[in-house]
Amino acid sequence: MTPRGAPSHMAREIAEIPAVVARALQEGAGELDAVAREIGRRAPRFVLIAARGTSDHAGLYARYLVETTLGLPVGLAAASVTTISRAPLRWDDVLLVAISQSGAGPDVAAVVEAARGAGAPTLAITNEPGSLLATAAELVLPLRAGEERAVAATKTYAASLALVAGLVARLAGRPAWGAGLTGLPEALETALVEAGAWIRGPGAACVAALAAAAEALVVSRGHNFATALEIALKLRETGRIFADGYSTADLLHGPVAVAGPAIPTIAIRPDGPAGAAVDDALAVAARRGVIPWTIGGHEAARVKGALVVAPDLPEPLTPLAYVLPGFLLAEAAARARGRDPDAPPGLSKVTRTR
Amino acid sequence: MTPRGAPSHMAREIAEIPAVVARALQEGAGELDAVAREIGRRAPRFVLIAARGTSDHAGLYARYLVETTLGLPVGLAAASVTTISRAPLRWDDVLLVAISQSGAGPDVAAVVEAARGAGAPTLAITNEPGSLLATAAELVLPLRAGEERAVAATKTYAASLALVAGLVARLAGRPAWGAGLTGLPEALETALVEAGAWIRGPGAACVAALAAAAEALVVSRGHNFATALEIALKLRETGRIFADGYSTADLLHGPVAVAGPAIPTIAIRPDGPAGAAVDDALAVAARRGVIPWTIGGHEAARVKGALVVAPDLPEPLTPLAYVLPGFLLAEAAARARGRDPDAPPGLSKVTRTR
Repeated sequence: MTPRGAPSHMAREIAEIPAVVARALQEGAGELDAVAREIGRRAPRFVLIAARGTSDHAGLYARYLVETTLGLPVGLAAASVTTISRAPLRWDDVLLVAISQSGAGPDVAAVVEAARGAGAPTLAITNEPGSLLATAAELVLPLRAGEERAVAATKTYAASLALVAGLVARLAGRPAWGAGLTGLPEALETALVEAGAWIRGPGAACVAALAAAAEALVVSRGHNFATALEIALKLRETGRIFADGYSTADLLHGPVAVAGPAIPTIAIRPDGPAGAAVDDALAVAARRGVIPWTIGGHEAARVKGALVVAPDLPEPLTPLAYVLPGFLLAEAAARARGRDPDAPPGLSKVTRTR
Repeated sequence: MTPRGAPSHMAREIAEIPAVVARALQEGAGELDAVAREIGRRAPRFVLIAARGTSDHAGLYARYLVETTLGLPVGLAAASVTTISRAPLRWDDVLLVAISQSGAGPDVAAVVEAARGAGAPTLAITNEPGSLLATAAELVLPLRAGEERAVAATKTYAASLALVAGLVARLAGRPAWGAGLTGLPEALETALVEAGAWIRGPGAACVAALAAAAEALVVSRGHNFATALEIALKLRETGRIFADGYSTADLLHGPVAVAGPAIPTIAIRPDGPAGAAVDDALAVAARRGVIPWTIGGHEAARVKGALVVAPDLPEPLTPLAYVLPGFLLAEAAARARGRDPDAPPGLSKVTRTR
C-alpha cells in the first residue's frame, strides 16, 4: 500500500518511461543488431506472437508494425492450441516472438518450446533475462526496465514497444519512421510534461468523469488500436472501471450500441488516414450523444480541449507517446475513486496460466 | 419494431438454426468438396482471416479449428494495414478467408482484392453470393441462411461456424471430430429445447440477473473463446449490457479486477482439458465472490443449476451448441430490460467501414 500523500509506484514508474526507453534502445543496441541479423539470416515468412495481458497489447503493436513495415503476415498465437489441445503447429518459416514482463507464464513458455523444438527461430522480449521464458527462447531482448513494483505494468509496456520498433526498423533497413527512434526519449519526456499539464487543466474533467463512471470506452485505429486496448485495461485494473477498447471499425459493428453521453469515451486520434477513420466512427457515435476526450497529434488540435502530444513523432511511433496520458488518467482516476493504483483487487504481479 | 407479444425476429431466427445448419452442410456439400479440393491443390502454409463484428468471432473459431486440426498457423488480418496504411503484404503461400454475413464491407473486400491480386487463394463465406465480397473472392461458400431480419446476427453466425467446420473436416481428411458433423443439426435441435427449458427453469435467475445488471462477463477457453466473445457481443448489442468476453487465461491477466458478485458471469465450460482450465480461472474468480452461470457438457453437470447441452458433441463442434443458450439469454435479457431485441440503438444490419 502506498502511504497517503506519497506518489504511487505506478506514478513513479510512468515518470521513468523516457529514461527506460532510452536505456532499452541505447544499451540494447548491440543485442538489437545481433537479433536482427539472425532473424534476417533465417528469413521468416510469417510471424506468430505469444503474450498475455499488457504484453498482448505490445504484441498487437508488433503485429501492426511488422505488417505495415515488413509486409509479413502476423498471427497472435493461441497458447491453448499448444497447452490444452496439444496440437502440433507447422512451424516452418515462422518466427515466434514471445513478450512477457516477468517471463514466468508457463503457457507462453510452452509455445516457445514447441516452436524451438520444431526448429523455428524464437525471440523472447522480457524484463527477466533469467526467466523460464528467456531460458526457453533462442534469442532474447531484455527490457532493462528495472524492477517494476506496481502490479499495473507501464514502463515495461513502453520498453516492449521501443524494442519492437527498434527491431523492426533494423529488419526493414531504413523505414521512413526509423529516424524518429533517435529523438524518441526526448519526445516522450516532452509528452509526459504536456500530458501532466493537460490532466491538471482541460483533462481534469476527464479524470472527474472517469472517477464517476461505471463504464468507459477507448477507441483508435491502426497502430494505436493497441493503445486503446492498453488504456482500457489500465482503467479496468487500477480504477475498476468497466472500460473497453475498440478499433473504431469494430465499434460500429455492434459495440456502439452501448455508447452514450453517460459513458466517458477517449479517442486516440493520430494524424493522417488512421485519424480520418477515427473521425468517421466518432461522427456515428456523436449521433448517440458521445462527446469524446481526444488525444492526438497536430490535427487533433482542431478539437476543443484535446491533448496534442508529441505531434512531430512519425505515426508508427505515436503509440509510445499516446499511451502516456492514458496511464496518467488511469492512475489519477483510481485515486479519485479512492482506490490504491498499486493494489488492484484480485491481481498479482506474476500470473501463471497454463 | 416487433409488435407486442409477437416473437422477435431474433427469437425466430435462433429457432431456425438447426435447419439452417443442415442446409448449409447438405445443400453446400458439393461446394465444400470443390473448395476443399482447390485449397488442397494450392497447399497454403498460413491462413489469414478477415472479418468484423460477429463474423470476426466466426473467424476466431476458424483460427482455433485450423490450428488444432490442420496445424497451420493462422492470423486475423487487420484491414487497416491494407485500407489505411496501404502496406503491401507478402501473400505467398497464404490462404485468405473472409467472413461477412452481408458481404458489403469495403474494408474486408479490399483485403480480399489485395490478396487475390497477389495470386493468393481467397475464399468468401457470406450469406450474399452477389455481394461485393463474393465478387472479389476467387472461391465462395454461401451460408444459405435465408434473409436475416434481426440486426443481431444469429443464424448466419451458426451457418458460418458450420461451413468452417465442414471445410476443415474435408481438408483434414477424417479428423476424430468430423463424424459429429452428420448428427449436428439434430444435436442443435435438442440443444435448443434443453436451453429453452433451462431459461424457463434455473436459468430464469440468470435472465433476471442480466436484466438488472449494468455489466456482465462471459468466459471460456479454446474453441469456445469465440463463443464467449459472441455471447458478450449479443448482450451488448441487444441488451445494452456492458458485457465483456474473455479467455479465462486473459481474465487472470488484469480483467479479473472488475469481477465480483454484482457482475453476472457466464462460464462456457466444455468437457476435457479446456474445461479444466476454465475451472482453474473460476477458482481465482470465486475468491472475488464470483458465482458463475455454467453452460457446458457432461462434466458441467457437477455444478448446481448448470445447463448441460449437447454433451455428446465432439468438443471442437461444441461452439455451435453452446452459443444457443447465449443467444436466448441475450434475447430474453433485452426484453426483460424493456428493449426491442430487433432494434439495437445505433446499429444497422449492414456496416460499411473502410
